[in-house]
Amino acid sequence: MAQSAKCGAVIRRFCRRCRGDGAHTRTYCRGKRARAAGRGEERRVARRGGRLQQHVVFDRLGVRGRPGHHGERTGDRKALQPGLPGGVHVPAQCRQRRLGTWRRRDTYHSLLTGRVHLSKRQEEFYGRELIIAEREMVEQEADEILRDAADNDVAFLVVGDPFGATTHSDLVLRAVKAGIQYRVVHNASILNAVGCCGLQLYNFGEIVSIVFWTETWKPESFYDKIKRNRQSGVHTLCLLDIKVKEQTLENLMRGKKIFEPPRFLSVNEAAEQLLEIIENRRGKGEELALTEDTLCVGLARVGSKDQKIAAATLQQMVKEDLGAPLHSLIITGHMHPMEIQMLKLFAADKSCFNKLISLDGSTYYS
Amino acid sequence: MAQSAKCGAVIRRFCRRCRGDGAHTRTYCRGKRARAAGRGEERRVARRGGRLQQHVVFDRLGVRGRPGHHGERTGDRKALQPGLPGGVHVPAQCRQRRLGTWRRRDTYHSLLTGRVHLSKRQEEFYGRELIIAEREMVEQEADEILRDAADNDVAFLVVGDPFGATTHSDLVLRAVKAGIQYRVVHNASILNAVGCCGLQLYNFGEIVSIVFWTETWKPESFYDKIKRNRQSGVHTLCLLDIKVKEQTLENLMRGKKIFEPPRFLSVNEAAEQLLEIIENRRGKGEELALTEDTLCVGLARVGSKDQKIAAATLQQMVKEDLGAPLHSLIITGHMHPMEIQMLKLFAADKSCFNKLISLDGSTYYS
Repeated sequence: MAQSAKCGAVIRRFCRRCRGDGAHTRTYCRGKRARAAGRGEERRVARRGGRLQQHVVFDRLGVRGRPGHHGERTGDRKALQPGLPGGVHVPAQCRQRRLGTWRRRDTYHSLLTGRVHLSKRQEEFYGRELIIAEREMVEQEADEILRDAADNDVAFLVVGDPFGATTHSDLVLRAVKAGIQYRVVHNASILNAVGCCGLQLYNFGEIVSIVFWTETWKPESFYDKIKRNRQSGVHTLCLLDIKVKEQTLENLMRGKKIFEPPRFLSVNEAAEQLLEIIENRRGKGEELALTEDTLCVGLARVGSKDQKIAAATLQQMVKEDLGAPLHSLIITGHMHPMEIQMLKLFAADKSCFNKLISLDGSTYYS
Repeated sequence: MAQSAKCGAVIRRFCRRCRGDGAHTRTYCRGKRARAAGRGEERRVARRGGRLQQHVVFDRLGVRGRPGHHGERTGDRKALQPGLPGGVHVPAQCRQRRLGTWRRRDTYHSLLTGRVHLSKRQEEFYGRELIIAEREMVEQEADEILRDAADNDVAFLVVGDPFGATTHSDLVLRAVKAGIQYRVVHNASILNAVGCCGLQLYNFGEIVSIVFWTETWKPESFYDKIKRNRQSGVHTLCLLDIKVKEQTLENLMRGKKIFEPPRFLSVNEAAEQLLEIIENRRGKGEELALTEDTLCVGLARVGSKDQKIAAATLQQMVKEDLGAPLHSLIITGHMHPMEIQMLKLFAADKSCFNKLISLDGSTYYS
């Protein structure tokens, strides 16, 4: 039954039974899987192949703006700087230690993505070498990562929920195409961790991204989305821009890989930009969706021990000091009295609640 | 400096330094904290009191519809039935073992909330007695839970993200009022775990709840929210009704605490209800926001090993078999080609993609 003629080194290593000594059957060889994939049957094979258990595991690191649970576990909270699509590949063995449901393997591959700095302690925690994979690597070398998954289980630890970014969907699609099973372990992300400010998660509308304005580029499209949400009475979570690995035009033209220091949009800058848009729209005689007195919530480093939350009007938000990144901003919609009570915990200046308007006894807006 | 005259047993136990022997100063006694709370200074005291480290910790169990990470860790996946606001109180010691950042305590209080069934193995895992706290208990006996927090750290483990439910905001507000510090460890919830179907989390609008219809009560308000989302081009996550601890009118009137078996709305029933609404609105000559051919996604037991995802038209969804609860339904909005590729992984009948309309080269809707 040996299929050594059909199997090269990669295929032999792939075989669990023979571990490369050639005494393996077609069932276990990559040839069949590859052919099946060619016939578009990759998913069926993946499902059927109880013994073809190669996985890409999306595991969790933490939420946007927090040091990450793994970092926390190792006692090194500053080790991980989340906020970008990214992750750490660790072997199944590590998962087994943590969740007790994965088989132990001899071999492993590890990889780490995003703007993540590794410490020795983290590698010790995983018992594995960790590899930082920048966004570029995940996007451009996805196939290489998956090639490793042919031999070993690959754990791809990400910051926030894995599906906050299309990059990871792309990785899943490639894995499925190659007949590689995948499994996802979900994680908290800023999308639900914002609930800590007291605004109910069910009352949020579409998420909005506020970008850095430049001298010549001042898009206002996010304002229109906020307007739509406000008209529906729901809150808007605004994710604020992150600029990493930026190149000056000069360096880009010369092909020099010199990057500018990372920049993170603060709630102050975001509030300033919004105020400028309000001023523009007022000038055009447009009916305003939000004003200087609209109640907002600024959040910084959500989930970390030094997280900071501030409730204030949009005008006050320009001056709020929330400290280091990452920041997020919420523009409130209609509020329940309990939401207001919670926000009051986070307001330095309670005057921001003075201009709330009561729609009925149990609904307020600003 | 002893304040024994002012301190009863509760206050002495509360004191870390003397542990009840009376040789403690006012700084550590409950009297001061209680008085401060009376003066509305509870937050300041809580912040200032580096040594007054009583916490209510919101920890995580899992996402809606999955057995919960803790259950998984203990190897007993069926042990936890999430889906309701709830949690487990475990002492700081347990957290320490898990995250390495919490101090060990001798004493503990444990409590568990929601429709959660406990096994011996779970108690062994925590090394603690666990107490199930039904929704009723958390809502009505919140002060009692917090009273325990005066003596010990209390960990309140919840299913999904803690702030998916107002009940937990209420608990936070009470804790703050009583001068008790709290800390939140966020968790994945269905709100972000839905990303596993391939629809981008950033493209979701307001969440909608679809309730069980009765003979006499057939609300259609959720349709209007879906319509609003569809008009904005965003997807709608529909959380489906859960009926637990229901009483028949007879038992309610007689004050008998006999409860009906729990019921969970399935994607099939939800799709049926939506189709009926569509028929009604069509009869009224209204412009339809969605039709029988609208592409939907049904999800069941998200995050568990046997999770099931099905992409189908609303009409087809009536017949999809997703198995046991909990189910969720997504009504798609505008889709990116990669979202469609992902959905194709989960479609038994690919014909549901036949009627997609292209807005431009990179946006589709149904």
